[in-house]
Amino acid sequence: MSEFAIITQYFSSFGAGANVLLSVGDDAAALRVDEGCELIVSTDTSVAGVHFPDDLFPEDIAYKAVAAAASDLAAMGASPLGMTLAISLPEHDALWLHGFSQGLAAASRDFDLPLVGGDTTRGLLSITVTVMGQCATGQKLLRSGASAGELLCVSGTLGDSALGLSMLQGKERGLDIDFEDQEFLLSRFSRPASRISLGLSLLGQATSCIDISDGLLADAAHIADASGCKLVIDSARLPMSEALAASIGRDRALAFALTGGEDFELLFSLPESKSLPDGCTIIGRVEAGEGVVCDQVLEKDGYDHFH
Amino acid sequence: MSEFAIITQYFSSFGAGANVLLSVGDDAAALRVDEGCELIVSTDTSVAGVHFPDDLFPEDIAYKAVAAAASDLAAMGASPLGMTLAISLPEHDALWLHGFSQGLAAASRDFDLPLVGGDTTRGLLSITVTVMGQCATGQKLLRSGASAGELLCVSGTLGDSALGLSMLQGKERGLDIDFEDQEFLLSRFSRPASRISLGLSLLGQATSCIDISDGLLADAAHIADASGCKLVIDSARLPMSEALAASIGRDRALAFALTGGEDFELLFSLPESKSLPDGCTIIGRVEAGEGVVCDQVLEKDGYDHFH
Repeated sequence: MSEFAIITQYFSSFGAGANVLLSVGDDAAALRVDEGCELIVSTDTSVAGVHFPDDLFPEDIAYKAVAAAASDLAAMGASPLGMTLAISLPEHDALWLHGFSQGLAAASRDFDLPLVGGDTTRGLLSITVTVMGQCATGQKLLRSGASAGELLCVSGTLGDSALGLSMLQGKERGLDIDFEDQEFLLSRFSRPASRISLGLSLLGQATSCIDISDGLLADAAHIADASGCKLVIDSARLPMSEALAASIGRDRALAFALTGGEDFELLFSLPESKSLPDGCTIIGRVEAGEGVVCDQVLEKDGYDHFH
Repeated sequence: MSEFAIITQYFSSFGAGANVLLSVGDDAAALRVDEGCELIVSTDTSVAGVHFPDDLFPEDIAYKAVAAAASDLAAMGASPLGMTLAISLPEHDALWLHGFSQGLAAASRDFDLPLVGGDTTRGLLSITVTVMGQCATGQKLLRSGASAGELLCVSGTLGDSALGLSMLQGKERGLDIDFEDQEFLLSRFSRPASRISLGLSLLGQATSCIDISDGLLADAAHIADASGCKLVIDSARLPMSEALAASIGRDRALAFALTGGEDFELLFSLPESKSLPDGCTIIGRVEAGEGVVCDQVLEKDGYDHFH
């Protein structure tokens, strides 16, 4: 099967969208950016054996790759316009491609990101998703903008995805984890949410925002650096799922919540005058100074591919 | 060196541009799409050993990857806005990265494409460039639109890049090629042009357009298919460089010109009433019917990664 046929058969059926003027099939795609809006764009690569286990279901590989990229749009408060996909494949495996396309279609639907272009090449399995969104000019959420006196908040629960990965890697075999909890934790790794709606609702409310991809402490440090302030995190306030705490106990759960990557929840600063969005938790405050301080002493680095 | 430091050190210094509102450093980048324009986007992946020899200079690997993607903007008649780069690297090699960043900077400048975002991962060498441009709404050049009676035209010269690659692969060692010709042919492979200005000048003139990446015959077939017409190519009219003909003789030169990939010249249909742009050649005509016809009998397939 030729590369053109692969693209046509598997990837061109979910390329339509409200702002898609031209989808897969010409030299490039065309998207409408609404008047008064700026284009928001981000690129994210997922490599087999690095970002996901080689034997993860192809449905989940596709879904997770899109969710990770879409999460950057969420962190900017952008509404999705579309995406392109560059995939490197070791071979043409129809069953695998079928599964992959199912996951891609699901993510395309869930995150409102029509697939408008792409490239397929031969090589080790690697997926690069470029997402495009739009935001009213000058309104986007940045990492800079937090200031002393504001609240530090996070969406959802933390640490689930990292435990899900650890389970997939076979590192948690000694644990007696409830079946439903297992399913929940695995899905938090393989089918992460991307907080697009929350990001939109934070426009004009939050003063800074980032998505948690490298771990709470590591990503909080990006806000602290960009905003020129200190973030103080109260570990007792960290939102953790019942599944996480029930599976591995309070101490390890806390370590996962502080340093585990790929939860794709939003971390943001909020003036005290603003109301906390549903599903979010106040985990600390912004102070004058620099860096991130937490009452727990833990290894502070997030996941970094070149360490 | 961490992945963040790599991005900062090597790739964030040429991220400024007239329409860049926010460059590398936050969760996503922001670009201004001018009023009355639509966004044009394309993604292109280059893999070591597939799209270029492993030992190609890193400067050239970078330059060529950007040129290949930019060529899709040229084929749409889009003016460049910016690009993102996803690079997978086997190891951190400062000298290699330095060279790569030099080539990237040169291409960024030559094609007016500020680098506004990206991702670095570990893996076999692979580069995915996503280019964004803009075009007055509804004015973009498509593959469809050619109709019977029009002229078929091409820019530049054909086949040089394919011979340059063949030389790099050591397949032309028996030939006695003039040093300047060698340099020219190699540069046509490793430092291809991208006909951005020509594409812009074809707006409102050409009725269809494509860039020649897979070979003249293969890409002509895309215009024929999309436009629902027949393209008749006169092999005697094909523009060939003196270097090509002098190096390998008329017959092989013709084969390279008809089927060689990656010249990144523009192939377009032009009504007889329009004037031919400088540097372009009429190579045939559009007729009623289907497919591509040439007086030469040759293998008609361009390069296809899954064949």
